[in-house]
Amino acid sequence: MTSVDSSSALPAAIVRADGRAPDQLRPISITRGWSNQAEGSALIEFGNTRVLCTASLTQGVPRWLKGEGRGWVTAEYAMLPRATNTRSDRESVKGKIGGRTHEISRLIGRSLRSIIDLKALGENTIVLDCDVLQADGGTRTAAITGAYVALADALRWAKENKLVGRNAQPLIDTVAAVSVGIIDGVPMLDLPYVEDVRAETDMNVVVTGSGKFVEVQGTAEGAPFDRDELNALLDLALAGTVELAQIQRETLGESA
Amino acid sequence: MTSVDSSSALPAAIVRADGRAPDQLRPISITRGWSNQAEGSALIEFGNTRVLCTASLTQGVPRWLKGEGRGWVTAEYAMLPRATNTRSDRESVKGKIGGRTHEISRLIGRSLRSIIDLKALGENTIVLDCDVLQADGGTRTAAITGAYVALADALRWAKENKLVGRNAQPLIDTVAAVSVGIIDGVPMLDLPYVEDVRAETDMNVVVTGSGKFVEVQGTAEGAPFDRDELNALLDLALAGTVELAQIQRETLGESA
Amino acid sequence: MTSVDSSSALPAAIVRADGRAPDQLRPISITRGWSNQAEGSALIEFGNTRVLCTASLTQGVPRWLKGEGRGWVTAEYAMLPRATNTRSDRESVKGKIGGRTHEISRLIGRSLRSIIDLKALGENTIVLDCDVLQADGGTRTAAITGAYVALADALRWAKENKLVGRNAQPLIDTVAAVSVGIIDGVPMLDLPYVEDVRAETDMNVVVTGSGKFVEVQGTAEGAPFDRDELNALLDLALAGTVELAQIQRETLGESA
Amino acid sequence: MTSVDSSSALPAAIVRADGRAPDQLRPISITRGWSNQAEGSALIEFGNTRVLCTASLTQGVPRWLKGEGRGWVTAEYAMLPRATNTRSDRESVKGKIGGRTHEISRLIGRSLRSIIDLKALGENTIVLDCDVLQADGGTRTAAITGAYVALADALRWAKENKLVGRNAQPLIDTVAAVSVGIIDGVPMLDLPYVEDVRAETDMNVVVTGSGKFVEVQGTAEGAPFDRDELNALLDLALAGTVELAQIQRETLGESA
Amino acid sequence: MTSVDSSSALPAAIVRADGRAPDQLRPISITRGWSNQAEGSALIEFGNTRVLCTASLTQGVPRWLKGEGRGWVTAEYAMLPRATNTRSDRESVKGKIGGRTHEISRLIGRSLRSIIDLKALGENTIVLDCDVLQADGGTRTAAITGAYVALADALRWAKENKLVGRNAQPLIDTVAAVSVGIIDGVPMLDLPYVEDVRAETDMNVVVTGSGKFVEVQGTAEGAPFDRDELNALLDLALAGTVELAQIQRETLGESA
Amino acid sequence: MTSVDSSSALPAAIVRADGRAPDQLRPISITRGWSNQAEGSALIEFGNTRVLCTASLTQGVPRWLKGEGRGWVTAEYAMLPRATNTRSDRESVKGKIGGRTHEISRLIGRSLRSIIDLKALGENTIVLDCDVLQADGGTRTAAITGAYVALADALRWAKENKLVGRNAQPLIDTVAAVSVGIIDGVPMLDLPYVEDVRAETDMNVVVTGSGKFVEVQGTAEGAPFDRDELNALLDLALAGTVELAQIQRETLGESA
Repeated sequence: MTSVDSSSALPAAIVRADGRAPDQLRPISITRGWSNQAEGSALIEFGNTRVLCTASLTQGVPRWLKGEGRGWVTAEYAMLPRATNTRSDRESVKGKIGGRTHEISRLIGRSLRSIIDLKALGENTIVLDCDVLQADGGTRTAAITGAYVALADALRWAKENKLVGRNAQPLIDTVAAVSVGIIDGVPMLDLPYVEDVRAETDMNVVVTGSGKFVEVQGTAEGAPFDRDELNALLDLALAGTVELAQIQRETLGESA
Repeated sequence: MTSVDSSSALPAAIVRADGRAPDQLRPISITRGWSNQAEGSALIEFGNTRVLCTASLTQGVPRWLKGEGRGWVTAEYAMLPRATNTRSDRESVKGKIGGRTHEISRLIGRSLRSIIDLKALGENTIVLDCDVLQADGGTRTAAITGAYVALADALRWAKENKLVGRNAQPLIDTVAAVSVGIIDGVPMLDLPYVEDVRAETDMNVVVTGSGKFVEVQGTAEGAPFDRDELNALLDLALAGTVELAQIQRETLGESA
Repeated sequence: MTSVDSSSALPAAIVRADGRAPDQLRPISITRGWSNQAEGSALIEFGNTRVLCTASLTQGVPRWLKGEGRGWVTAEYAMLPRATNTRSDRESVKGKIGGRTHEISRLIGRSLRSIIDLKALGENTIVLDCDVLQADGGTRTAAITGAYVALADALRWAKENKLVGRNAQPLIDTVAAVSVGIIDGVPMLDLPYVEDVRAETDMNVVVTGSGKFVEVQGTAEGAPFDRDELNALLDLALAGTVELAQIQRETLGESA
Repeated sequence: MTSVDSSSALPAAIVRADGRAPDQLRPISITRGWSNQAEGSALIEFGNTRVLCTASLTQGVPRWLKGEGRGWVTAEYAMLPRATNTRSDRESVKGKIGGRTHEISRLIGRSLRSIIDLKALGENTIVLDCDVLQADGGTRTAAITGAYVALADALRWAKENKLVGRNAQPLIDTVAAVSVGIIDGVPMLDLPYVEDVRAETDMNVVVTGSGKFVEVQGTAEGAPFDRDELNALLDLALAGTVELAQIQRETLGESA
Repeated sequence: MTSVDSSSALPAAIVRADGRAPDQLRPISITRGWSNQAEGSALIEFGNTRVLCTASLTQGVPRWLKGEGRGWVTAEYAMLPRATNTRSDRESVKGKIGGRTHEISRLIGRSLRSIIDLKALGENTIVLDCDVLQADGGTRTAAITGAYVALADALRWAKENKLVGRNAQPLIDTVAAVSVGIIDGVPMLDLPYVEDVRAETDMNVVVTGSGKFVEVQGTAEGAPFDRDELNALLDLALAGTVELAQIQRETLGESA
Repeated sequence: MTSVDSSSALPAAIVRADGRAPDQLRPISITRGWSNQAEGSALIEFGNTRVLCTASLTQGVPRWLKGEGRGWVTAEYAMLPRATNTRSDRESVKGKIGGRTHEISRLIGRSLRSIIDLKALGENTIVLDCDVLQADGGTRTAAITGAYVALADALRWAKENKLVGRNAQPLIDTVAAVSVGIIDGVPMLDLPYVEDVRAETDMNVVVTGSGKFVEVQGTAEGAPFDRDELNALLDLALAGTVELAQIQRETLGESA
């Protein structure tokens, strides 16, 4: 288990309810291999948010990809009914998946595909399951960050088991994500639930290890935002994902 | 029917397949009141993309909002099965709504709520139905732009019918949306289908009449994008939505 | 666009709310090729009723027909949620198709198959999508009448693209449909919504260009009807469908 | 159990596979009160077709009828999976009701409502369940004919239990139904499955005890049909429903 | 029709509401071949409980069993909506199968598979449909007991039609089931509905003709039960299933 | 976290693949309060089987219980898609809950209700969610055993928060469950997956702290079982649940 407290040493006039500076991540913890069934897995925690990510790698591809010599990576996100403060009905019981679940599953899938060379993966399929066991804001960004670790381990497994060739390089970069938002006019990094509900603007940013954007999703929850606010949020997010990428590398036992 | 051809007079080295400059919108047409059943309606065309937007206003609010003295605005997006080049199965026949449909419906709803004062709307509900009759890229941004016109007319109707008070101002701004993307390294405005599938980066931007962002959704379809590319796309989108806001005002018979 | 006002010159003691004689059709308009995506399409209007009909032709047949050397024609009918005076929930959102939708889809499919030689069609499948954009009574009969035009154009396209042999004659007749009903004891042709809800008896009649019945569906909404009433309704329907067949031929550029 | 063999004494040149004349019903049997749970019930047999009809009467009406002082009658039709020669999947397992089931349920409901005075019924709801235990053609017409008996008994029960006033007359007529069709050019009455699949034209006719039409549903399965053929089929159906009405009266212990 | 009244001659201090002794079955009746469509069928009655069991035998096996040289036996249980004292909604209308239905279907399937040699059955599939036409307690145990008769007849049919080899012995035993329960401290056999709802402990026991257990499902509805109570219930159930096995043999025309 | 290794000191001729004696439990671990959102929670492990149990207590009862002065306890069981060795499709994605899930949810609910005085609980509802994070046999029995701990803590919370009166005693006993089975003729306790698939007979037994049966569910997977085998299995299960009850008490900080 790699656990890093990203508390920054900078003086900060504004102190958040949990004692953090505006540009500070919550304590991040990634437990690699938490599940012994999947080809890759990680239990990731951003403060009280806790997501179990597993990567299931199987030979073959969906029908619409057959014979193209490429692999596929997809994701499914879900929340346990009592991950949140009040219980939600199960989507299996309701018989349908809600719009929010669909939206986040698609975001995770796109994010992880962005750092995979599907050609190098060969005709294999990886399903990333991200199940939120406890929710306190930022579940989708924690899911992306944890899914990367599970994915990297599933690819090691695939090499060891010769499903991917020795010289193939399906993993072309790392990827991490973080939420940012404006609260009472102040841009802040990594919002827990109490901040998230008060944010005027809410943004999820997915960034590669090499510092490029994979997804930028900004939403005005209260008032629309201007270009300066957008830029301040992007600055915070880029700095936060640098820290997350470092934690991912340490978790995977890689040198920076 | 207000129909404007937004061809710009600037010289442009790069000419697109349909003859446009990179910073030029497709011909935009909005037919106000296309449906005679709804409280407000508009048939909007961005080139060959054709979306029927209706606004249904009813008294009362969903149960979870009851007694709060506020109204509600929501949206549903759908495509006719043969709006596209090959026929898709109907979601009603499949018995469930797909992730893409959910995602776009939610985007349209959030976008329109951003320019509504729900308190001033009173306990009324407006459902915006955006049905794509013909699809050629940019259906979600056309839907938002057209839904604004339907919404504005439904609010006029509500005032005339005294569901909203004479001095209430539920509409606090206008809103329009456009897609932008990078194709062969060149940022371009308002992508038709043939460009959309080739774009390395794809962004949908929703902007108020006063020039502030409501939504910024950028996705790396091919390679991740850097800060400069992001900025170039935002510049294009801001200019495009200024033109769209002008067409909306003309359609609604308002002076600029 | 072929648009015909079928007002008859006969003197008629009874004048309907919209000024028509009992045996007069509403203004009929058929816009051929309204959609540029489908192999055949038509926007048909019976007064304020407006239905978009598309014909999608693909090679191959459903599994249960494979290897029999015959083609297949089927139809799906649906209404936009705000086609009617008050908004209905979408069937995709409800997760199931209602009985009325099923019933009408099946009627349209049977009606169009009745004038197709499935052997001559070869192993091709045609799906007729009839989406009601605006509803004012008679949507199913407008759908059948418009679907015929879309179907005829899809078959021309199939010949041009050699999916159907040069000498094959899959189209063996034309087909059109109209509603009739008894209101205050008077048999009337082509009922708009206000008449439809008041009709004691309601009948939908589908007739070939050669004047034979494909479907006769008469329902006592109020009091049961006798043989004489049935005969009067059939007379009206046969005359109405002769007019509709003429409009179809003109739309398709065929001489009578 | 009332069981009547309706073999006619007329000489008939044409003899059917089961030995009947073209204008002859199959042996009809109605077992009144077959179920001891429902307010009214009947097991009806048309030859090998066997349908269990129950009438469930409860106080109150659906929400959309509340406070109007009228009752409601509706029907649900279904087939056991092995009612037919090859097993069908259960609609409950498939998770949706097919178009044919919907269509027939609606037909039965309309047919029975046609002979009920909903005002006289008061705010009571009757659900007619028609479950096909064994199918050999004509299941919908057997269902209507049997449902009438169950309905009549449920209304007697309602009077005895004072849910319907002593002088109220909710039942204003009787109703029965029969199928007719043209096989090898010959109009025939009450088609079993082997004839049904061969019929060029197939018609279901619902007729009141006083000889008026409630529903006429004629469909060209093979070639379209002309006015003379339509008239011959209606003649057969009217004669057949006279016999059925007689059997219904005997079953219910009423004098003709 | 084989009908046996299993009233025992023993003196019994305790007399049940229907006059039976605690260790006495209700009148049992099995009508073999009640349906003329299925390969095997039986209408079984335990007092007022009435279940129609059909066995559908088809060549081939589900995909997951292909090529293993073994057959498959499965079951589906359902209740007609008005089998019970108050009408239930149809599961097909609700669009999903309830937990109770699932649980019982699985129990019936396991019970019947326990006496089948799937290897000897060869690559054939048998579906047992058990539809409750009238319910008065013990529907699942009646279903198992009746399904055995339908299954045995389907296997005879399979031999006659050479789907199963002449010397193959797919049927290795008989199987029957009965419910037992403790009411007011007294263990009782074969509970009708009025007793079932009052039982403190309720047990369903499935036993082979050779007297071994296939399923034992005991549930404390009121107070938990001890080992002695469990043993008393098992004694009753074993005696009851001996009687049922005898009735099954007589129904199938086999000597004891 | 209370963690107990129940290895027994008895000599045992038969040693299982994981080194246990036939009558020995796997290492059991219960982490109380694993989730910080629910009123009560426990992560329970039986060897590699890992189930997260949460108890959600809310005021009020389901509609069918209103006004009766009693509370309600129910349960939902589910498995994460990659809890098992190969990934299963999510039930939310399939749009329906499988029979096995239904069956186990109902078993857990009944088991926990058996030790609750619903009258003493008052008009409160407790939902027990048991989500299998990792599966290695015995998930339903682990779920029941862990759910008891979550339930006990939710009831303490209810007392502290005055939803349940100070003197009310809703908890009338403890409850635990274990699986037993016969493998190669030897009765064994607490089967992991590799043993479960080989068991001839499989039994789940739910027992109160006072040693009475709540549920006995024995199933012949291979050959039917006789009375002696049943008794041997019950002996093993009773001894195993005594140990589990002891671990539950220690986890909850209660003296034995």
